[in-house]
Amino acid sequence: MQTLNRLAQAIKAELIGDPQAVVSRACPFDAAGEGDVTLALGAAYRLRIKESPATAIIVAPPAEEWFRSVLVAENPRLAFARAIHALHGRQYESRGVSPDLIAGERTALGSDLSILPRVTIGRDSIIGDRVTLHPGVVIGDRCRIGDDTTIFSNVSIYDDCEIGSRVIVHSGSVIGSDGFGFVADEMGHQVKMLQPGRVRIEDDCEIGANCTIDRGLGDTVLRRGVKLDNLIQVGHNTEIGEDTVVAALTGFSGGTRVGRRCVIAAQVGTKEHITIGDGATVTAKTAVIKSVRAGAVVGGMMPAQDLSAWRKSQVYYFKLPELAARLRRLERIAKNSARGADNAG
Amino acid sequence: MQTLNRLAQAIKAELIGDPQAVVSRACPFDAAGEGDVTLALGAAYRLRIKESPATAIIVAPPAEEWFRSVLVAENPRLAFARAIHALHGRQYESRGVSPDLIAGERTALGSDLSILPRVTIGRDSIIGDRVTLHPGVVIGDRCRIGDDTTIFSNVSIYDDCEIGSRVIVHSGSVIGSDGFGFVADEMGHQVKMLQPGRVRIEDDCEIGANCTIDRGLGDTVLRRGVKLDNLIQVGHNTEIGEDTVVAALTGFSGGTRVGRRCVIAAQVGTKEHITIGDGATVTAKTAVIKSVRAGAVVGGMMPAQDLSAWRKSQVYYFKLPELAARLRRLERIAKNSARGADNAG
Amino acid sequence: MQTLNRLAQAIKAELIGDPQAVVSRACPFDAAGEGDVTLALGAAYRLRIKESPATAIIVAPPAEEWFRSVLVAENPRLAFARAIHALHGRQYESRGVSPDLIAGERTALGSDLSILPRVTIGRDSIIGDRVTLHPGVVIGDRCRIGDDTTIFSNVSIYDDCEIGSRVIVHSGSVIGSDGFGFVADEMGHQVKMLQPGRVRIEDDCEIGANCTIDRGLGDTVLRRGVKLDNLIQVGHNTEIGEDTVVAALTGFSGGTRVGRRCVIAAQVGTKEHITIGDGATVTAKTAVIKSVRAGAVVGGMMPAQDLSAWRKSQVYYFKLPELAARLRRLERIAKNSARGADNAG
Repeated sequence: MQTLNRLAQAIKAELIGDPQAVVSRACPFDAAGEGDVTLALGAAYRLRIKESPATAIIVAPPAEEWFRSVLVAENPRLAFARAIHALHGRQYESRGVSPDLIAGERTALGSDLSILPRVTIGRDSIIGDRVTLHPGVVIGDRCRIGDDTTIFSNVSIYDDCEIGSRVIVHSGSVIGSDGFGFVADEMGHQVKMLQPGRVRIEDDCEIGANCTIDRGLGDTVLRRGVKLDNLIQVGHNTEIGEDTVVAALTGFSGGTRVGRRCVIAAQVGTKEHITIGDGATVTAKTAVIKSVRAGAVVGGMMPAQDLSAWRKSQVYYFKLPELAARLRRLERIAKNSARGADNAG
Repeated sequence: MQTLNRLAQAIKAELIGDPQAVVSRACPFDAAGEGDVTLALGAAYRLRIKESPATAIIVAPPAEEWFRSVLVAENPRLAFARAIHALHGRQYESRGVSPDLIAGERTALGSDLSILPRVTIGRDSIIGDRVTLHPGVVIGDRCRIGDDTTIFSNVSIYDDCEIGSRVIVHSGSVIGSDGFGFVADEMGHQVKMLQPGRVRIEDDCEIGANCTIDRGLGDTVLRRGVKLDNLIQVGHNTEIGEDTVVAALTGFSGGTRVGRRCVIAAQVGTKEHITIGDGATVTAKTAVIKSVRAGAVVGGMMPAQDLSAWRKSQVYYFKLPELAARLRRLERIAKNSARGADNAG
Repeated sequence: MQTLNRLAQAIKAELIGDPQAVVSRACPFDAAGEGDVTLALGAAYRLRIKESPATAIIVAPPAEEWFRSVLVAENPRLAFARAIHALHGRQYESRGVSPDLIAGERTALGSDLSILPRVTIGRDSIIGDRVTLHPGVVIGDRCRIGDDTTIFSNVSIYDDCEIGSRVIVHSGSVIGSDGFGFVADEMGHQVKMLQPGRVRIEDDCEIGANCTIDRGLGDTVLRRGVKLDNLIQVGHNTEIGEDTVVAALTGFSGGTRVGRRCVIAAQVGTKEHITIGDGATVTAKTAVIKSVRAGAVVGGMMPAQDLSAWRKSQVYYFKLPELAARLRRLERIAKNSARGADNAG
């Protein structure tokens, strides 16, 4: 619970309204009521501010007086993120180390831990301070987990992986599985390429649920602040640059290089060994089959349409080479007849 | 094992044949033999009924006499589903509560449970009657699990989630992970939007293996009877309507509203905050980038073709704006020459 | 650590250089230094051999003399895979059976096992010799696990599944979950098709992390040597032929038949009940909606391009039926005027 006065300071916004009014919850616009702070982003929501029963509403400039209090912020989404933190963020409290922890020889544990029941750690691993490990977490040999990192239930971390500080790994994710590399032998049988490299996840990364991050011959690296959504595949030897965000169900083939501050939308796929430059954006479902230069915005998908209309377009798509040939023929005829007309003229 | 007489009643079909013949197994058409009941759906299978050694065959009307017994049903697939139940369904039997159950303070357990070994439940949770929890299931604090629900091994359920009655959750699925919401701060670092909402899964839902269902600022809701296949991503604040079915590897972005009785095929993706109306169908791999009206059938994909043919079509796809411009030019020429001819005439 | 002499024999390559030189590590080209063996595949890398500090470099013919030692192999990638094995492969060593193993009645364990802590096995199952089960593995009733198989942490195997010898299953994968089959009843509620079949995974398969392999009414089968990448969905009653490789995030609908030695790239989807012939290749992201003949190379995707360029092409894609009609009209006009000219001539 916070006064609007304190909340405004916490989120770096200008308050227009009652500084002593109190909010206890951050809510989506349509669910917000008395005692809530919410966000009105864009003109449509701004028009509806008057009808909202919320105690305070975060808006972009220009500042205006309203019946309700408003918190004016240059970046209202950022201010709202901070308001949620201010109202719903919980201070870390150590829950101790469950007596049933299984940890191998020479594994070192930090202080103020929250190791819940049914956690298993191999040998020669190092667990930092204030680390939270949920039930069913399995960590291999020779791993390092940095301070203030949280690993949710049933996450699997293979041997020799490095996880930084303040990292969050959501349930079911797998870190350090073998990269997918096979080569057919003389008999046509697939011979496995062993993957003796490591996975390194730097500080402040967040990895969604049920992601898979493979190890390679060299290292697979997520640089500081990378944020992955759920069900993402990161192939072996891939490197993802600082502060890049990646949406769900995207797959990076082996050896992809993704720059800093990129935005990779959902269900994207990348060809192996291509590079995506710093600050590039790739829209949803796109197949990235060659490198993308820094700052570029690239895309390519088949948007939903009425199914029978799509079928007709698709028929002609198949015939495009033929249509183009027919067009060229007509152009030749038109040219000849123009020449004929000239001659005749 | 059932007589055809009893089976016909159980599946609401009309029996033509021997009421005392006995079947013990339901099988696909090509695998069915003596003592089996199978399904002949469509003209091709119907033509092959005579060659089948199955003891009984479920068919659509019109009824006809055959050498074998047939079970005539208006909806043969539904009748077959019921036949599988009648022959292979098992009555629930409580397997008790494993003595190694770890459950937090004030967690309440129902009766006639089947809690297998290595299950972990937080505090203040409520587990209904006749619930089956397989090994490795982790349930957080303040969760509710309804009666007759089955949760398979290594499922992770975060704090504050609600699962209804008669729900099935398959292995590896994650319920209640944080929605993917970040906003860049002044330094370009991604600030996490906390997601204090809940996930609510209503009665009679089934969730496939390795799905992920995120919590949001508000609630993420699966209404009664939703059926999810495997590896599906349900973003934060998404709501899926009653009896909707969703095939594998589909992803719903945050805030998607899916209506009742929709059919969403595999590898579909939806843009955030769009609505899919009741009874709509979305075909496989489609990118749904704007709302779909109730009852609509929408699609859009690139079907497989010979790779070199596809490459040629794709080259011209890139040139479509140019081809269209050339077409317009020719049309102008044709119009002018027609006018010229008119004038000449 | 190996002399080049011995390594050349192990990988079946011809050594040109110092037979007594010693290597201890296999590395990617750019990371390789003194004491390493690496691979120079393709002309670009071959040109850079002179600048590499690696002790030995695997190359394709023709053989040449270099400052460094080279290992000449017909199939350099295969030779490199073997070199990684020779240098990094570890001999199996039994780690014993953890005393906390929970195994049901009549489950039989082989010899020389490595069953790590927190493994749970049902009843009437058979575990072969030299099997490695990592923490959190859950195996159901009546399963069989063949000799020398490794199952990584938090894998879930349902009842009645069969896993062959020398199989590797990576973390988080789910084997034997129910196939996705529902049929709406008279009320529009979805009735579950029970799936009493099994999943059978033959010898020498490898299954990546967080895959899902469903059981059906009949059996779902991966033939000998199938290799699956991560996050792959194998629908019920699907069969995948020997030595076929499948990349990440691909989904096979129920009843798909995939031949031997196929290459199925990432994010592919197949329609139910289609067949992909032996030796076929399907490129990434393709929707396979009809059967593919043996040896065919099929594809279809929307490659990334500048987003505004893509939008323009896409607009005309929607108008293709109209463009084609306009083209036909022009052709008619041209034909008529040609006839007119003939008549006039």
